[in-house]
Amino acid sequence: MITHKDKEVTEKKIEMEGADKVLMRILIGMEEGSNDIIMRYFTIKPGGHTPRHIHSHPHIVKGMAGRGVIIDGEGKENELTEQMSAFVEPDEEHQFKNPSDEDFSFLCIIPNPDK
Amino acid sequence: MITHKDKEVTEKKIEMEGADKVLMRILIGMEEGSNDIIMRYFTIKPGGHTPRHIHSHPHIVKGMAGRGVIIDGEGKENELTEQMSAFVEPDEEHQFKNPSDEDFSFLCIIPNPDK
Repeated sequence: MITHKDKEVTEKKIEMEGADKVLMRILIGMEEGSNDIIMRYFTIKPGGHTPRHIHSHPHIVKGMAGRGVIIDGEGKENELTEQMSAFVEPDEEHQFKNPSDEDFSFLCIIPNPDK
Repeated sequence: MITHKDKEVTEKKIEMEGADKVLMRILIGMEEGSNDIIMRYFTIKPGGHTPRHIHSHPHIVKGMAGRGVIIDGEGKENELTEQMSAFVEPDEEHQFKNPSDEDFSFLCIIPNPDK
């Protein structure tokens, strides 16, 4: 078993094209021995966003702090707060945005794409 | 895409032998279309605990509120707070306990055992 403080995990800026003001920590992943499921903690700064993109794996999402939106495959904005959770289907185009003036944080859990 | 308020998901008491004062919501699971990964939100009331048990799937864990412990395969107590995350290995005996006087809540994410 591994337990650790989330703050002890290195936070990295996402440099992917189309991403702006997005930070990520891999809370539990292959380094912790989890080969099948990866739990990432994202923070999007005010005005920031992830790329609008599509891939074959789903996202299991839990709002953690602040208030943001997930844009779904039809372009509709869906609110996400720390009181909420979400599921992004495989092969559904999507994007996370933070239109607020406070940090927006959420967990985004995926099957290991490298396996 | 599905988004919902966590409170709108039915909370059920865990009736498993060895469980005491444990409540669970399936935040994202097969009902939401997630066939591979299940995200459950557990609350253990003060003095409560899950069974000490063992199974072949891992647990990806995120502390959400309060303060509890996870007992690992060697019987050691590992603190878990909302600032922390944890990984319980496949086939590792484990138990969650709440020795505090406030509710202890955490996410426990698993590969779908019914698949």
